[in-house]
Amino acid sequence: MTQFDNVTVIKKANVYDGGKVTSRVVKFADGSRKTLGIMLPGEYTFDTAAAELMEILDGELEVQLPGSDNWQTIKGGESFNVPANAIFKLKIHSLVDYCCSYFE
Amino acid sequence: MTQFDNVTVIKKANVYDGGKVTSRVVKFADGSRKTLGIMLPGEYTFDTAAAELMEILDGELEVQLPGSDNWQTIKGGESFNVPANAIFKLKIHSLVDYCCSYFE
Repeated sequence: MTQFDNVTVIKKANVYDGGKVTSRVVKFADGSRKTLGIMLPGEYTFDTAAAELMEILDGELEVQLPGSDNWQTIKGGESFNVPANAIFKLKIHSLVDYCCSYFE
Repeated sequence: MTQFDNVTVIKKANVYDGGKVTSRVVKFADGSRKTLGIMLPGEYTFDTAAAELMEILDGELEVQLPGSDNWQTIKGGESFNVPANAIFKLKIHSLVDYCCSYFE
């Protein structure tokens, strides 16, 4: 799926970390939502409210998932899941284009 | 208008200048399109194909419009128009969140 049809897009971006991470919210007819975002190189710690599916559209990152000591490499076309109410860490070495789905 | 309803969003971002400018395409039922994007600090020269309306959602920039020697300051909530097949220059001092409409 290269595009989302019949959706609502919130105009204003979400901006984190001085603009190193930016995203926009896409809302679906079934009430679900996703964000489409960009992460620039850096190291980040994120916490989840809902469970998340992070789909990497382009670029490459390392992720340390909750409860793991290991860093796992994720490339464009790959994805990873994060449970609700959890903390995960990312190392971004080059620009990452992503789609994040929330399971609420 | 804080959101766009019943639109199509292209998942993959457009990435320019090593990620300093990124945007996503939003397509409307009438065949028109807009991009929602982020520009990080820097100086940029853009050329238009279609005429454009650049609406600054957040941040501040200086623009030098085609045929002008002057730099004009544009702030969040303001906008400017650029004719088709023209070149314009921007100086971005802090992150700019924008919506660009194309008149094709």
